[in-house]
Amino acid sequence: MIEPFTLNAGATLAALRADKPLVHNLTNYVVMNETANAILALGALPVMAHAREEVEEMVGLAGALVLNIGTLDAPWVESMLRAGRAANERGVPVVLDPVGAGATRYRTATAHRLLDELDVAVLRGNVGEVATLVGVEAEVRGVESIDFGGDSAELAREAARRLGVVASVTGAVDHVSDGGRVAAIANGHPLLATVSGTGCMSTAITGCFLAAREDAFEAAAEALVAFGVAGEDAAREAKGPGTFHAGLYDALAALSPETLTGRARVETR
Amino acid sequence: MIEPFTLNAGATLAALRADKPLVHNLTNYVVMNETANAILALGALPVMAHAREEVEEMVGLAGALVLNIGTLDAPWVESMLRAGRAANERGVPVVLDPVGAGATRYRTATAHRLLDELDVAVLRGNVGEVATLVGVEAEVRGVESIDFGGDSAELAREAARRLGVVASVTGAVDHVSDGGRVAAIANGHPLLATVSGTGCMSTAITGCFLAAREDAFEAAAEALVAFGVAGEDAAREAKGPGTFHAGLYDALAALSPETLTGRARVETR
Amino acid sequence: MIEPFTLNAGATLAALRADKPLVHNLTNYVVMNETANAILALGALPVMAHAREEVEEMVGLAGALVLNIGTLDAPWVESMLRAGRAANERGVPVVLDPVGAGATRYRTATAHRLLDELDVAVLRGNVGEVATLVGVEAEVRGVESIDFGGDSAELAREAARRLGVVASVTGAVDHVSDGGRVAAIANGHPLLATVSGTGCMSTAITGCFLAAREDAFEAAAEALVAFGVAGEDAAREAKGPGTFHAGLYDALAALSPETLTGRARVETR
Repeated sequence: MIEPFTLNAGATLAALRADKPLVHNLTNYVVMNETANAILALGALPVMAHAREEVEEMVGLAGALVLNIGTLDAPWVESMLRAGRAANERGVPVVLDPVGAGATRYRTATAHRLLDELDVAVLRGNVGEVATLVGVEAEVRGVESIDFGGDSAELAREAARRLGVVASVTGAVDHVSDGGRVAAIANGHPLLATVSGTGCMSTAITGCFLAAREDAFEAAAEALVAFGVAGEDAAREAKGPGTFHAGLYDALAALSPETLTGRARVETR
Repeated sequence: MIEPFTLNAGATLAALRADKPLVHNLTNYVVMNETANAILALGALPVMAHAREEVEEMVGLAGALVLNIGTLDAPWVESMLRAGRAANERGVPVVLDPVGAGATRYRTATAHRLLDELDVAVLRGNVGEVATLVGVEAEVRGVESIDFGGDSAELAREAARRLGVVASVTGAVDHVSDGGRVAAIANGHPLLATVSGTGCMSTAITGCFLAAREDAFEAAAEALVAFGVAGEDAAREAKGPGTFHAGLYDALAALSPETLTGRARVETR
Repeated sequence: MIEPFTLNAGATLAALRADKPLVHNLTNYVVMNETANAILALGALPVMAHAREEVEEMVGLAGALVLNIGTLDAPWVESMLRAGRAANERGVPVVLDPVGAGATRYRTATAHRLLDELDVAVLRGNVGEVATLVGVEAEVRGVESIDFGGDSAELAREAARRLGVVASVTGAVDHVSDGGRVAAIANGHPLLATVSGTGCMSTAITGCFLAAREDAFEAAAEALVAFGVAGEDAAREAKGPGTFHAGLYDALAALSPETLTGRARVETR
């Protein structure tokens, strides 16, 4: 049942740096600077634009659209829908980060609305958020996922099937699935959980890889390899969350297309 | 007249890290990332949510509510009132940071409105802001307080009495009062004044301690001890405001419940 | 035809640190923290305020007004116009950063509207943005300028003449012109292009220098000298974009009025 796949994060990174795609973000206020800097350090070009007057035109220039509901309100949701429809019309891939789905009805409903009205290529969330969206029980507190008794690989596969997306479920081990294939990615470091917005960064980097790689499943898995490897590198000289955070941009910029693929810790599940 | 009190910042920090309370923030755009990271580094869980559709539900999940008027406008003030009322109904303690009160009539009036319509547990501001709110003369320039000829301990006591709050007045030495008791806290470092948003961080950390400690006066004073000690630690390897800022998160994460209480430099006034 | 001029960035920096002017910013969400910290590290006082209820009063306290359209929408544009008119009435100099002009019609039109309706002292943009505003062809992708075949010195002079501003066009070499005089500033470092928002920081620092120096051309050129020198200093110990970013605030704070003028790499063009 499981189809074979080949991840080559290094090759995609090289292509991305050569092409420097514009990645259009409608994201939350908390992480705007951080995701812009992560995208730029990786080698793509970030832009943040949310005005109804310009989102359709801006997304027409972009290689990917990142939607993130971390600090949503009504005008922003309207702009996300508008940008998402324009992206769909033009074949620009969309990645959605359903920040805090499950914490409030408004976030859950908005995530469902975006999934229903738009063609979302990749849904990137934590276990609690994704479990909420597929109707599985999980403890959610605010925007942090606390606990999940189940099997994350199975959750990713189920989410992909039910929601018609590539599901990218991050945690200590990340699981990416298109409903058939599942990649379990063990790259990363516990310090990533000590900095606010690293989940949002992984979504933004997924957007970068989507702009450089046709297959959304492979792009999503490769993005998590790249971000995880950068986390491993940044952890080496970090003294805590603050120096780790600064080092993470250094590590993203220093990622080597030559060695990246060989450092992937991926298993087929 | 002065009642005795016992501060044990280390014990409260240990309780906070065990419980990991959600701290709900309606704060300004400038410091959203920084306060989220300070809360997370300390050991609690931050969430930023401002939409009228969700603030009441979100605050129901929280151990404390932080209101900060640093970049206010009408819809945000409305959401702050809405969140604050829900917090009051549910017994969730509220801390208010009246950023820039005294600089413009709108900020002064909004701070008064929040104090009038809500039950605010702790008011955390600088000398100029708090002096403005109790009707004492002080020079205020924008959001930075420049000079105050008076006695900050007396100002804190007066603010607590007139405004019906615990007043937490920060500066070179901080003063916290509930109208009777006054704690003068000498922890901290001059580099804290060189980074934008450290006042807002101290407010957010006050929120964390309020979520873990019943007595608002003691929680507010302990929060300033913890933040001040982290500032002292971060200063040791800092080469300026930027490396100090990164080191501050390292220092918050490294705060030791075992040693924190012993490092408090607090006097009863 | 070229009038002589004397730049003395060190003297202006000393005056600025003595006076600590308030610099009022209506800027984009991505860089609010970063520009506030850059202004504070340099030695001035930042304030961010966008509410229609307070922008006129706030700008009355300020030594300069910074308008930046990086994440514009209709209410913010209205507030920028309101703040700008109040600044003009009170003789407070205005610097405009037309972020992304040329990327969307909305950004281009808004930049033109602000230039038409306000008396802008300095227009600080990259080659693509400024070329767009004077009607010259340039490739623009999102908010990053990619390529410009022409002569930047000539572009700056032309922009100054046609738009009635001091034009400050930044790139590998920066060019500042008032239509007659042109200064070519070679200070800076390639790492500045790897951090999002350094262009916005240079605009904010231009605001600081405008608050301390009568002649807008000289103020704009000196600001780029100061920011470029800080970039050079920060680069020395940087391991990549993240540590460079943290080091940039250290370097701004450590700028020495005694040595700054001597480090300027400026040519008359």
